[in-house]
Amino acid sequence: MNCLEERIVKDGIVREGNVLKVDSFLNHQMDIELFDEMGKEWKKRFAGKNINKILTIEASGIGIACIAAQHFGVPVVFAKKAKSINLEGEMYVAEVESFTHKCKNQVIVSKKFLNPEDHVLIIDDFLANGCALQGLIQIVQASGATVEGIGIAIEKGFQAGGRMIRNLGFHIESLAIVEAMDSETGTITFREQ
Amino acid sequence: MNCLEERIVKDGIVREGNVLKVDSFLNHQMDIELFDEMGKEWKKRFAGKNINKILTIEASGIGIACIAAQHFGVPVVFAKKAKSINLEGEMYVAEVESFTHKCKNQVIVSKKFLNPEDHVLIIDDFLANGCALQGLIQIVQASGATVEGIGIAIEKGFQAGGRMIRNLGFHIESLAIVEAMDSETGTITFREQ
Repeated sequence: MNCLEERIVKDGIVREGNVLKVDSFLNHQMDIELFDEMGKEWKKRFAGKNINKILTIEASGIGIACIAAQHFGVPVVFAKKAKSINLEGEMYVAEVESFTHKCKNQVIVSKKFLNPEDHVLIIDDFLANGCALQGLIQIVQASGATVEGIGIAIEKGFQAGGRMIRNLGFHIESLAIVEAMDSETGTITFREQ
Repeated sequence: MNCLEERIVKDGIVREGNVLKVDSFLNHQMDIELFDEMGKEWKKRFAGKNINKILTIEASGIGIACIAAQHFGVPVVFAKKAKSINLEGEMYVAEVESFTHKCKNQVIVSKKFLNPEDHVLIIDDFLANGCALQGLIQIVQASGATVEGIGIAIEKGFQAGGRMIRNLGFHIESLAIVEAMDSETGTITFREQ
């Protein structure tokens, strides 16, 4: 088990409806030392890739992406979930559905910050049905930039997102892939990697 | 001028209505090396303070807070702006008005992540009228924790928030305090610190 899997076993809480709560270290309170280990691991797994920018999505992807960016020496762009009056000018827009919040969001990135010369690593905290990720991929492709890879903290392997997006030829590295969860016993089974 | 002030002069854009766009390095695309310099500076300015947790607010505070946290060796908690079905249990709630988005938000932090033993550094990207910051202070105080200090990237010195909150006895360290902006000439005047 890697450090993220160990932490999920220690502090993750399984709830009914396939909900995995990791808010004590990943997406509400954030363990920065753990994020640093995760960044190190992605750097290793994406070794040799020509990456000049990290793209993530607000809110819980941002902290992970910023700490990981230190290992790649690149800036981070975060996609926003709602139109802001300060975000004028031309924007790339994708529509995504949220599993957690049960609603549709527009995801936007200013055209200033993605262009055909960019080689992008997408980073996010969760991959389940893959809607958010598809929105980010759509935005990178609309800009003419290249998706060099996708770094995910926790993938729900029993949902279709990861398989679908890998089948499209994308290189996804999920640090923990949950194959099964049992809310009665609290047991979490990870995919062997 | 410190590195943030220099960067604002170089890449900030002044718009009518006292809008300062810093989205190329601070709150949409994020320059992680700049954030690291900012974290170093806050560590110096809050030297000797007993800080065991950083509190920020989604979305644009998160990256800055996470990089700063490495200089303090502490975890980060970010306040959320809307109720999420995954955020069950008891929460601290404050109502804040957004200058940028012209709407009211509930700001929430799980009670699990703030308690009377905590000594909190609050970090955010902007301080203007101070509404978001007052919400965060209210939440820290409701938890019984201590606000050890407040680190702001850019303060709009011509708006009332900073003065008001300093008058309440809080120790605010803003890395750049904008005294005046002229959208016609693009001139930005900083307060001498």
